[in-house]
Amino acid sequence: MPLLVMKFGGTSVADLDRIRNAAAKVQREVERGYDVIVIVSAMSGKTNELVGWVEQTSPMFDAREYDAVVSSGENVTAGLMALTLQEMGVPARSWQGWQVPINTTASHSAARFVDIPRHNIDQKFAEGMKVAVIAGFQGLSHEGRITTLGRGGSDTTAVAFAAAFGAERCDIYTDVDGIYTTDPRITSKARKLEKIAFEEMLELASLGAKVLQTRSVELAMRYKVRLRVLSSFEDTDENSGTLVCDEDEIMESKVVNGVAYSRDEAKITLVTVEDRPGISAAIFAPLADAGVNVDMIVQNISEKDYEDHPGSVTDMTFSVPINQVDRARKAMEQAKADGSIAYDELIADTEVAKVSVVGIGMRSHTGVAARMFKALADENVNIKVIATSEIKISVLIERKYMELAVQALHDAFGLETA
Amino acid sequence: MPLLVMKFGGTSVADLDRIRNAAAKVQREVERGYDVIVIVSAMSGKTNELVGWVEQTSPMFDAREYDAVVSSGENVTAGLMALTLQEMGVPARSWQGWQVPINTTASHSAARFVDIPRHNIDQKFAEGMKVAVIAGFQGLSHEGRITTLGRGGSDTTAVAFAAAFGAERCDIYTDVDGIYTTDPRITSKARKLEKIAFEEMLELASLGAKVLQTRSVELAMRYKVRLRVLSSFEDTDENSGTLVCDEDEIMESKVVNGVAYSRDEAKITLVTVEDRPGISAAIFAPLADAGVNVDMIVQNISEKDYEDHPGSVTDMTFSVPINQVDRARKAMEQAKADGSIAYDELIADTEVAKVSVVGIGMRSHTGVAARMFKALADENVNIKVIATSEIKISVLIERKYMELAVQALHDAFGLETA
Repeated sequence: MPLLVMKFGGTSVADLDRIRNAAAKVQREVERGYDVIVIVSAMSGKTNELVGWVEQTSPMFDAREYDAVVSSGENVTAGLMALTLQEMGVPARSWQGWQVPINTTASHSAARFVDIPRHNIDQKFAEGMKVAVIAGFQGLSHEGRITTLGRGGSDTTAVAFAAAFGAERCDIYTDVDGIYTTDPRITSKARKLEKIAFEEMLELASLGAKVLQTRSVELAMRYKVRLRVLSSFEDTDENSGTLVCDEDEIMESKVVNGVAYSRDEAKITLVTVEDRPGISAAIFAPLADAGVNVDMIVQNISEKDYEDHPGSVTDMTFSVPINQVDRARKAMEQAKADGSIAYDELIADTEVAKVSVVGIGMRSHTGVAARMFKALADENVNIKVIATSEIKISVLIERKYMELAVQALHDAFGLETA
Repeated sequence: MPLLVMKFGGTSVADLDRIRNAAAKVQREVERGYDVIVIVSAMSGKTNELVGWVEQTSPMFDAREYDAVVSSGENVTAGLMALTLQEMGVPARSWQGWQVPINTTASHSAARFVDIPRHNIDQKFAEGMKVAVIAGFQGLSHEGRITTLGRGGSDTTAVAFAAAFGAERCDIYTDVDGIYTTDPRITSKARKLEKIAFEEMLELASLGAKVLQTRSVELAMRYKVRLRVLSSFEDTDENSGTLVCDEDEIMESKVVNGVAYSRDEAKITLVTVEDRPGISAAIFAPLADAGVNVDMIVQNISEKDYEDHPGSVTDMTFSVPINQVDRARKAMEQAKADGSIAYDELIADTEVAKVSVVGIGMRSHTGVAARMFKALADENVNIKVIATSEIKISVLIERKYMELAVQALHDAFGLETA
């Protein structure tokens, strides 16, 4: 029997009506001949309520108790989903993480999968059950305690089950109807993609497109689990949404498939840094220790090389989330006071945004960067920092030009039409 | 290390403040030198919310899914209680039913204990843990599914743990401060009892004193678990509340220790019933089949014996809850139509109440019934039905005299003073 994994997020199971709506989608797949594994999140708002209680009770909480409390939201939805399916005449039952068992590491609140034995669920499928409903986001440690997987954990659960059970596809039902070439709120020309490669989705996910969590895409890529993102709130069929898949499955691809942005960036420049072996480590180790997420890093060969500090100094520029600027500044001042680094000045520019173009076609096409820079230049957008990877080019620009830049790039790479 | 079981009901853990208040009581017992097992209910209102969702989803629900959903309320409280204790510096952790495991039968929503292995919890006590917090009301079937114990299940869980771990005492914290000689709302002379025997408590529980569920008292009696009922909302010490214990532990007892009542009774009389062997079965089997809870039964030797139906007919009177009168009437009419019983008339009196006096002293004292009947006669209260057991005398009277009767009996047996 072909098997499908279907995952419904918190807004898709927010109340009994929405659970019924989701169950109807499951029933349709059963009628098409699939066995189905359904992964459910907590009803939206429930997890926040539970987290709030834990944090109010104990600011420095024991993560094992946190996990025991917070995982209960998914258990409720799993039971209600199984009951709803039964009520529709679909043989279904629920499993909590420990019942499968979903074996994970004991890193509470950030656990990782160890293995998912198929025996219990396979046996029920063999006995005629059509749908296994699994409480997402949770697992069991070898100590017999409940774990949770951290943010996006239900997506990750869905991908892990799809991998373990060799599912034909893993459908992620959410509140958007697919992955777009860019944010439709920024340009009405944004187009829903029919397919997107894992690598592209990974870059888009980490660039701020919030539909799928990075970890679930990584896991899907590793186990070649075909992911489909589609809407809970629309009628859907086998062609709905966007398929996230191996690039081999994508016959033709544009050079660029998406334009992503991140609004809340800041650029920090350390001016006149001593240029010696080990200086990068001396700068970025204390930032990491302080919990600062450094994104882009650029080291300039300073003009100063040619003037009064020949060969001995440079400027170091990096970007951080805007709310980590103070933390970064403190870490640098401390390192300077310790004598581990030296610089003349720290300049923080908090009026920047990041815009990126992403596409696996870049691997085989040249001139993408030039085309990007020309499109921005045509709009008089000045580029402050550039960073590139194999399938992505990112630039930092003034924040006030961000929407203009996204629109210009979307046009320049012809993303409006398939 | 001496061990105590402490149980907190839903109103005692209704919010984070109340959980803190309950935890402070636990901390005090730890400071007195006890290891403690705490049994918690769901925060009040939570179980009703979950039950509501299940019933709305599926009127004829799968009890296994019902149990999986409904048990989550206790899991939340257990985690929050453990966190609260940790925050107070008391080493504590939570256990859900399946983690202990609390092994039960697979009678979902009405499961019974099979056994409670001590190993896991004992090991943690040996490692220095002072408090094990257990989610009440739930267990694990041999099929690996979550069960619940039915009404009063958290009290029963507490008693079962006290029995399994040889606890010195099982303290039931609730919203009243003990067991009273009668309902204080009916007479201000009602007095809190220091001690009460299991058998007396059983009679009072089944007579409508809603403090403890019958099953938990039965279990306590069987395993000789000393139960203490006391208030969550008052300062309490080792002498607070009422101890429910073996009668051997009660040095002196009055003949009567409590006056109970039940307001919502109805009396049904079948007039001129054929008096033959098997007639009782023919009447009460269809009532049982219809789910009617028959309480008192009286068969009169009818005066008709001496008149026109000599030796062949009788009147049969029984009491039922007032909301089951229609069901009882239908069952009787059906049986009459079937020809399995014959009677002239069914008279239902829905204006009655039951008043009972209870006391283990009745076993060795005579004249209790006479004293009761005289007290009622002195107030011109007419007795409609009488039923007795070894330690209880119950009468049905007109409902409008119920409070008067309770007050008169409370006075007649001198219950105001210890």
